[in-house]
Amino acid sequence: MVQNLHFTNEVMPTLRRLAEQQPHNRVVCIADTNTCHLLPSLDCPVIAIPAGEDNKTLATVGMVWDRLHELGVTRNSLVINLGGGVVTDLGGFAAATFKRGLRFINVPTTLLGAVDAAVGGKTGFNHQGLKNQIGAFAPASDVVISTCFFDTLPKQELKSGFAEVLKHALLSSHEQVLSLLNHDFSAPINHEALLQQLRAAVEVKQDIVARDPNERGERKALNLGHTVGHAIEALALSHAHPVPHGYAVAWGLVAECALAGMRLHFPSSDLYRLAGFIRENYGVTGITCNDYDALIDAMRHDKKSADGEINCTLLAACGDYRVGQVVTPDEMRTALDLMRDLLGE
Amino acid sequence: MVQNLHFTNEVMPTLRRLAEQQPHNRVVCIADTNTCHLLPSLDCPVIAIPAGEDNKTLATVGMVWDRLHELGVTRNSLVINLGGGVVTDLGGFAAATFKRGLRFINVPTTLLGAVDAAVGGKTGFNHQGLKNQIGAFAPASDVVISTCFFDTLPKQELKSGFAEVLKHALLSSHEQVLSLLNHDFSAPINHEALLQQLRAAVEVKQDIVARDPNERGERKALNLGHTVGHAIEALALSHAHPVPHGYAVAWGLVAECALAGMRLHFPSSDLYRLAGFIRENYGVTGITCNDYDALIDAMRHDKKSADGEINCTLLAACGDYRVGQVVTPDEMRTALDLMRDLLGE
Repeated sequence: MVQNLHFTNEVMPTLRRLAEQQPHNRVVCIADTNTCHLLPSLDCPVIAIPAGEDNKTLATVGMVWDRLHELGVTRNSLVINLGGGVVTDLGGFAAATFKRGLRFINVPTTLLGAVDAAVGGKTGFNHQGLKNQIGAFAPASDVVISTCFFDTLPKQELKSGFAEVLKHALLSSHEQVLSLLNHDFSAPINHEALLQQLRAAVEVKQDIVARDPNERGERKALNLGHTVGHAIEALALSHAHPVPHGYAVAWGLVAECALAGMRLHFPSSDLYRLAGFIRENYGVTGITCNDYDALIDAMRHDKKSADGEINCTLLAACGDYRVGQVVTPDEMRTALDLMRDLLGE
Repeated sequence: MVQNLHFTNEVMPTLRRLAEQQPHNRVVCIADTNTCHLLPSLDCPVIAIPAGEDNKTLATVGMVWDRLHELGVTRNSLVINLGGGVVTDLGGFAAATFKRGLRFINVPTTLLGAVDAAVGGKTGFNHQGLKNQIGAFAPASDVVISTCFFDTLPKQELKSGFAEVLKHALLSSHEQVLSLLNHDFSAPINHEALLQQLRAAVEVKQDIVARDPNERGERKALNLGHTVGHAIEALALSHAHPVPHGYAVAWGLVAECALAGMRLHFPSSDLYRLAGFIRENYGVTGITCNDYDALIDAMRHDKKSADGEINCTLLAACGDYRVGQVVTPDEMRTALDLMRDLLGE
């Protein structure tokens, strides 16, 4: 899977250069109602999908296919996905399946998108209440990663993305984790520093994806925090109180590091420090024991699960991960108890 | 793209052996209402989609996704597509996108499916009146090719598939073409001979696909007869009088070999012989000059077309093909006139 990453705050010149690299008959931008104005000098038709995770549906994909058709898009056209994870996931799927596949470039506009969805070739949409239930492995030809869109991001969005930066650090090294746990969300963004932190995080992901593009094995490492995180997210959505993806992942990291402490002796000092940072910046989950059955049911339907088992990536230490750890429902209940304790719930 | 082909009339033992080659938690068969009973000893749940090209829709794909979900299918499950081109195209797409991709095996039950749709990794469905408008390049892990289902095929189905066998011969050699033009559809099937003809045809396709899996160049050779054929098919469908795919391809071969005569001096003796065989076995198109505008419009929206151009693969001689030939509307009108003349219309 070839996917070229460009870390830059000169977005338009980079896009112009990338567009020129390959002949194409037209350019179409897929964005959402929030991001469609972010690159005013982009001179092409824009398909604006309704913003938000609950629009990441088959109906929206169908709308995008219809618009691509109306705009006369062919296999020789170029699609630019400009937006957060919903846009790059769904726009990527639409582009990858329209006439069996167009070239597309991702321009993530959120920290979460930049560190997670836009890189690595996963595309898809939600179906039957399950996140990314339908999708394809289809790499963007290029990803233009920039922090220039982040100044206007709500603090909550920034925190949501930072949880994924943290996840990548946990998969990489103790030092990388410590450097992030000092982060102060009340200070203005230091673009140079953040672009470097982002680069470090994305490189962790790239390395893992390059070794396992279709998630047959090692790529499951990137699922750290997500078995519990996705379940929390699905539960919140089913209660019509959606939580930001990164918040769910942050809480999932606490639960799964607690599990890792029980299973693999992940150091409790690291667990406490991580949980402290997450409690301070991400607050509480609002989950009660009455939710455990629904959470465990969702975990069993996770794409990574085989045959109803609960499957996690667990850390023996920062940077030392073990994929494919099967967890019993009882262990998971204990981990959820520990998570709530550590978050002060 | 790795896709293992098995030419055999021992279908069930082959399937059992293939299933055993890779661990899986469950097997699900996707078939249609005609083919779901063809392998009675297949011991697994069957998702039966309504038979016929006009059910090759997003609604049917959605139904298959829902059933896969209900059946508890995971990434470690195995899908067997048992049917003609609609089943292998649509079932392949559903399997390739469910949880971002399951392993699937194609078991084509028609000659057309065996020589065309089931092999080569193209999956998809029709959308907005355009054939295979949405899809993915996703190879079956294995394709089990057998003639044992063909005894009960209507003669029309057999002829439809034979047109694709003929197309592959045209891409291969004069000798291969001549050996087919003696075919007698009124005789009972000679299974051994047909399996060998099928193997020769599929090997032509495999060779081309191996050199160009994503249709960037040479694979367009396989489009021979299909620029005109697809347009005839779409027109017939829009008039609620669908024609078998292979009939449309057979007529398309005549039109495109007539074009090749004008453009590349394809020998007229070969053109007349081909047209004679097709007139005798496939009859007339029923097209009039009043249909030309609609046909040309459909050709311009073909997936292989760039920016409204009409794009064909043309032969300078049997086995000597040129992809990416841009044809003017006037040339196409002349070719359609010639096609109708040669077919005695």
